[in-house]
Amino acid sequence: MPFHHSASHRPGTTLPTLSSPAEIEQATEALAQALAANAIERDRAGGHAAAERELIRASGLLDLTTPRAYGGWGQSWETFYASLRRIAQADSSLAHLYAFHHLQVATILLYGKPEQHEFFLRHTVEQRLFWGNALNPNDKRALAIEDGEGWRISGPKSYCSGSVGSDSLTFSAWHEPSQSLLIGALPSDRAGISIRADWDAFGQKQTDSGSVIFDHVRLQAHEVLVRPGQAPTPRATLRSQMAQLILTNLYVGIARGALEEGLRYTRDSSRPFFASGVSRAVDDPYVQQRYGQLAVLVRPAEVLADLAAQAIDQALALGDAVTAEERGRVAIAVAEAKAVAHRAAVEVSSQIFELTGASATSARFGLDRFWRNARVHTLHDPIDYKLRDLGRHALTGAFPEPTSYS
Amino acid sequence: MPFHHSASHRPGTTLPTLSSPAEIEQATEALAQALAANAIERDRAGGHAAAERELIRASGLLDLTTPRAYGGWGQSWETFYASLRRIAQADSSLAHLYAFHHLQVATILLYGKPEQHEFFLRHTVEQRLFWGNALNPNDKRALAIEDGEGWRISGPKSYCSGSVGSDSLTFSAWHEPSQSLLIGALPSDRAGISIRADWDAFGQKQTDSGSVIFDHVRLQAHEVLVRPGQAPTPRATLRSQMAQLILTNLYVGIARGALEEGLRYTRDSSRPFFASGVSRAVDDPYVQQRYGQLAVLVRPAEVLADLAAQAIDQALALGDAVTAEERGRVAIAVAEAKAVAHRAAVEVSSQIFELTGASATSARFGLDRFWRNARVHTLHDPIDYKLRDLGRHALTGAFPEPTSYS
Amino acid sequence: MPFHHSASHRPGTTLPTLSSPAEIEQATEALAQALAANAIERDRAGGHAAAERELIRASGLLDLTTPRAYGGWGQSWETFYASLRRIAQADSSLAHLYAFHHLQVATILLYGKPEQHEFFLRHTVEQRLFWGNALNPNDKRALAIEDGEGWRISGPKSYCSGSVGSDSLTFSAWHEPSQSLLIGALPSDRAGISIRADWDAFGQKQTDSGSVIFDHVRLQAHEVLVRPGQAPTPRATLRSQMAQLILTNLYVGIARGALEEGLRYTRDSSRPFFASGVSRAVDDPYVQQRYGQLAVLVRPAEVLADLAAQAIDQALALGDAVTAEERGRVAIAVAEAKAVAHRAAVEVSSQIFELTGASATSARFGLDRFWRNARVHTLHDPIDYKLRDLGRHALTGAFPEPTSYS
Amino acid sequence: MPFHHSASHRPGTTLPTLSSPAEIEQATEALAQALAANAIERDRAGGHAAAERELIRASGLLDLTTPRAYGGWGQSWETFYASLRRIAQADSSLAHLYAFHHLQVATILLYGKPEQHEFFLRHTVEQRLFWGNALNPNDKRALAIEDGEGWRISGPKSYCSGSVGSDSLTFSAWHEPSQSLLIGALPSDRAGISIRADWDAFGQKQTDSGSVIFDHVRLQAHEVLVRPGQAPTPRATLRSQMAQLILTNLYVGIARGALEEGLRYTRDSSRPFFASGVSRAVDDPYVQQRYGQLAVLVRPAEVLADLAAQAIDQALALGDAVTAEERGRVAIAVAEAKAVAHRAAVEVSSQIFELTGASATSARFGLDRFWRNARVHTLHDPIDYKLRDLGRHALTGAFPEPTSYS
Repeated sequence: MPFHHSASHRPGTTLPTLSSPAEIEQATEALAQALAANAIERDRAGGHAAAERELIRASGLLDLTTPRAYGGWGQSWETFYASLRRIAQADSSLAHLYAFHHLQVATILLYGKPEQHEFFLRHTVEQRLFWGNALNPNDKRALAIEDGEGWRISGPKSYCSGSVGSDSLTFSAWHEPSQSLLIGALPSDRAGISIRADWDAFGQKQTDSGSVIFDHVRLQAHEVLVRPGQAPTPRATLRSQMAQLILTNLYVGIARGALEEGLRYTRDSSRPFFASGVSRAVDDPYVQQRYGQLAVLVRPAEVLADLAAQAIDQALALGDAVTAEERGRVAIAVAEAKAVAHRAAVEVSSQIFELTGASATSARFGLDRFWRNARVHTLHDPIDYKLRDLGRHALTGAFPEPTSYS
Repeated sequence: MPFHHSASHRPGTTLPTLSSPAEIEQATEALAQALAANAIERDRAGGHAAAERELIRASGLLDLTTPRAYGGWGQSWETFYASLRRIAQADSSLAHLYAFHHLQVATILLYGKPEQHEFFLRHTVEQRLFWGNALNPNDKRALAIEDGEGWRISGPKSYCSGSVGSDSLTFSAWHEPSQSLLIGALPSDRAGISIRADWDAFGQKQTDSGSVIFDHVRLQAHEVLVRPGQAPTPRATLRSQMAQLILTNLYVGIARGALEEGLRYTRDSSRPFFASGVSRAVDDPYVQQRYGQLAVLVRPAEVLADLAAQAIDQALALGDAVTAEERGRVAIAVAEAKAVAHRAAVEVSSQIFELTGASATSARFGLDRFWRNARVHTLHDPIDYKLRDLGRHALTGAFPEPTSYS
Repeated sequence: MPFHHSASHRPGTTLPTLSSPAEIEQATEALAQALAANAIERDRAGGHAAAERELIRASGLLDLTTPRAYGGWGQSWETFYASLRRIAQADSSLAHLYAFHHLQVATILLYGKPEQHEFFLRHTVEQRLFWGNALNPNDKRALAIEDGEGWRISGPKSYCSGSVGSDSLTFSAWHEPSQSLLIGALPSDRAGISIRADWDAFGQKQTDSGSVIFDHVRLQAHEVLVRPGQAPTPRATLRSQMAQLILTNLYVGIARGALEEGLRYTRDSSRPFFASGVSRAVDDPYVQQRYGQLAVLVRPAEVLADLAAQAIDQALALGDAVTAEERGRVAIAVAEAKAVAHRAAVEVSSQIFELTGASATSARFGLDRFWRNARVHTLHDPIDYKLRDLGRHALTGAFPEPTSYS
Repeated sequence: MPFHHSASHRPGTTLPTLSSPAEIEQATEALAQALAANAIERDRAGGHAAAERELIRASGLLDLTTPRAYGGWGQSWETFYASLRRIAQADSSLAHLYAFHHLQVATILLYGKPEQHEFFLRHTVEQRLFWGNALNPNDKRALAIEDGEGWRISGPKSYCSGSVGSDSLTFSAWHEPSQSLLIGALPSDRAGISIRADWDAFGQKQTDSGSVIFDHVRLQAHEVLVRPGQAPTPRATLRSQMAQLILTNLYVGIARGALEEGLRYTRDSSRPFFASGVSRAVDDPYVQQRYGQLAVLVRPAEVLADLAAQAIDQALALGDAVTAEERGRVAIAVAEAKAVAHRAAVEVSSQIFELTGASATSARFGLDRFWRNARVHTLHDPIDYKLRDLGRHALTGAFPEPTSYS
């Protein structure tokens, strides 16, 4: 049975080639600028950004990490994260959609069998599918019930990033008998699935993070990625690190975006304070000093995110041979990067205003979106537990326990 | 000539008596709760809050600091600031309107002659006038030109808090020949005045901080509070400290309001993080520790604001005998309070989310309004110059130079 | 049996009168200056400061809080804390000795019966006794064993502040049968007591915080302040708050002392950085700004410490009528003050050097003693548990559990 | 005329080979451990560490960066900085001596002519010379006066790191006629030079940073590296960046050393706080969280220091072709690393105590030396001007002006 989509996407135009760094950078830059063009208006309006989703699809970047064997570009995650960060500077909501597509591709690769890779990913490339998720492991209301050779899924899932407007979904459902989760993949338009655009946070507004309601949805055996009770390999648990580093790069992108927009405003529009004794805001000694402080919040976040990406690529390259300790080292590198990026995003996006002055708070500049986006997105999981993991490792050598968040 | 207002306010109902602490607290509490009832919706909508302005007027609190000689309640500024802070917890925009009315009353008392006190303030009480301002000293586009025994005022003024919907205005206009400002007071509906509701910041949305355009507006001699070139007495320069302490108390109110709302959310709605090992969010050791950190940001701000208020009342009590040094000591007390309150407001309003979790970012709770309000309002004048003034005083004993901001 | 001391102190000279604020301030100021005169040398040498202990004794300030009924001055704890803070600016080690004497006087008043007040405190005033302690509740090695109508005490106690060179000691000893502590008071030269000057921390060097070894020390019934298993009243538990506020005021004194010494050095000796463009260090904009930041760390600590002292005096004035809730409110006020003072002391004592420049690090100025003193003393009990108590109270209304530290 | 030293060092034993990473790491580790063995005692005693200087000499590491053409190992500065950082963990004073030797080698390479490279550096390798400096550019008391084909140098220089016990010195002297500095190199035992061991800071005690007094010291023409008035090339100005990155790596080493010692103490010796509810200090949730915070202060400092080292090596590889812009990019990378390392060193060395508890303050552990070393060394030049440079660059693109500090 084919992986059918009623609304498949087979545009007549061909997608750009993304086999060289220059091509990838160009595609990324073009997408970032296109998203930036109306980011302020879309932040104000919120809701589903159908047209901008199509820009992402048309960029070809959805195939970036898909192995060449299935028609993708087989690029490293370091390359992907770099593109993600650039896009997040411009629009961290759409960047999130872009990233979560890749996370679901990775989910299939890490959790699925080779024939599932072939089945799901070849369709994904050929039909240009855009993946979302309904995986929230803390929401156990959707249940998986055995039904012949397949399953029936029923119940709601919350915080389903990228679900609204998606072609395909990965999802999890609670299996009562084994007290564990089943993880599967299916088309978003499978009978019995309804997706509600009920995400209404004050930031990251266009992440399509709605609720997905399953009503006796039929799941076939070959659509099951992880059977209930199936213990994950260390390699499979890399997925949560890849997800955490997506968050990290979104934070870094927000921090860098906020800093650049703040600098631009100060440079182009700020007037010096009357008591400063200078004629240009950029010459105010306090403005200079404080921008220096912000620069050294952002720069370490970028550098640590790069190092963590390299650690992930190295671990992925080991395939099934990756050990719990190697996985643990990845987790530490990602945790360091995430903690630093978290702080950079929240601080920089709030502090720039002290350096732009009051006129920059006009709603037409939309400069508060960086803080709102940072604030909402950094709540994915508490930073104190990330710091705890780092401190515990420093104290005892223990690696973070592999969970959905660590 | 009477201080005529085409749209005067003489409601049939009498205003409450505000001669005891209990009466004032009751009126303040009632007003705060009434404003809180729809603060989230009004923050979302922005614009002019006509009905809520009437609630302020009906509270009787507009007469709180007006001397008893002119029909007011003659309460201390410490009492007023305490009421301001409580109202700011609920709605820092409307609190700002409330405060700026009192600042204009003080402007008349500090800048005007006794007959002007009588003229302006008795009308204010009798007709229940609500004052706004068009005083921005950095905007010198509105000009004052001598015209017989009076003046003509022409040109625009920006950042005119409380102007939209006001009955009366204090204002300043630039006098080219003397290179100094004239300060006056007149009815908002005087011919030639137009007030534009063009304030569009992402916070403090309902402060009615529009632009006021003067088009050959006639100003009579008795409406001039400060003639161009007239040097201010130390007593008159207390006005900028009273204004700075208004800002301070607004910040303190925002900080306290954010903390209380954060606590409420964590208590009532937050779920514990899965890795915390506790069954209630309030029992999470990191949540407890962090709320402790926030509490010790807010409390000092409250205490220093109280001390600064007492310093202002003491200086006011000295009348014209107040010296530059006594004025300087007030400025230091206010600067200390403002620097601490600034930080408390910005930090607490941003950090509470780490303790409420992601669900608290739903737009329907409007919890981001505290940060947006704090962020916009704390940009009134740069904190680094306030810190500089404090450091310079500690180093050399020099008091802050009396300006509109210090 | 009298409360005999082999080496009692009955100098021919009479002590100064301390019944007015001016007298107390004068005695405090004189003592502070005398201690300051050789504080740097004594910090370098460490060890027991016998001569300076005599200066404290001769100041008359040891009788400050002792009730008038027993020959003391009956001053408030707010008055005492103010004198403590001034002395701590000059020398926080000797200030600690001064404070712990008063804490032991309070221990007798709060734990003892009226006849014990009379017995111990009248002797204290008449013989000018200087009290130390051996109370460390976490060290349960010293045991109390019933012996006829009295007790025998055997075993060591650590961290006994003020024990070396003391005339009298309060102490605790573990009672195995009831798994609780006995608290008593006795002369330091009682047979079987040996006091070791083995305190060797890098700060607070002269606090005489040695070990006390009890070797079958005889304790009479009337020397028992708290019998094992005796539950404390809310009033008795005020003692730990009085102790915590002693620490707080020591921190505040250190912070203020460091700030004043830093300012003095910058003013008198620092050279401007070559790139600053100014000819005096005090005119460097960053030096001014940073001193402003330090000033607003110290000032709130002072103010909150004052408020907490008032809360303690109010609770003490209630006598046995003080409720657990009133005691709880004191604990919150003290915890707020302590958390703020802790941070002020550690930060200010470290940061001043950035504003004095490298030349101020010459050992002959001894300016590092502030950080060393702050660092050692702030480790008395962990600040994170104090913040936890504050956060828990904000979240749930629960007051800190009365313990030796809260 | 040979570069004669009356006390040359030609030990019979040969130095170790340092041509592979493993050899360098081994030599570094051995030296670090040897210095660590008595670092606490030497910190207490201060003064000149003659024996430990010989350990450095015997390690062979003094030749690490000297080009192979002159008998050195020709290793990269990245390699040198890595060894420096490891040694600084153990003993940041001796590490400073080690580093300043290399800085003087670089001074000869960057400032001198090829024949001077040959002359000075071949002697340095063959005679195993240990270089110090008397270059302080802010001290213009030592004067250079033309004398035939050579010069006479007279007057004092302060802050001469590594001068006490050195074999050779680079130095600067003020040339009044041209109002600029002459820079030269000569043996430390040249007639007329006296070196005073008068450095008495409370940290970095064994850096031999004495005063050097020149009394009509004869300087020959070939000993002049920079003639008065000679404008430096961009390449020559790399020297101040190499010096700043030495400071940076010392800070990083101190931060890492403090963190590791803190962790070790908590792990091995700290007892849990009674209220923590855990039986081991390493299990305290606050201890874990706070160590996580410290870890993410240290890690970015390490990473940024590595990147800046690579930038320096790349610029050096360009030789005279390096442009002002390339030099500027190095300066930004170094400034970022230094600002982050500064904060890490000061914060970590102070905060570890909150996690070890009071018992770790015993003087016998010497754990305060990290803060004292960090505090003294980070005052080399003010961090606020470094932040200013970074902010100015972000705002305007301007690179830091090449000076002795930037």
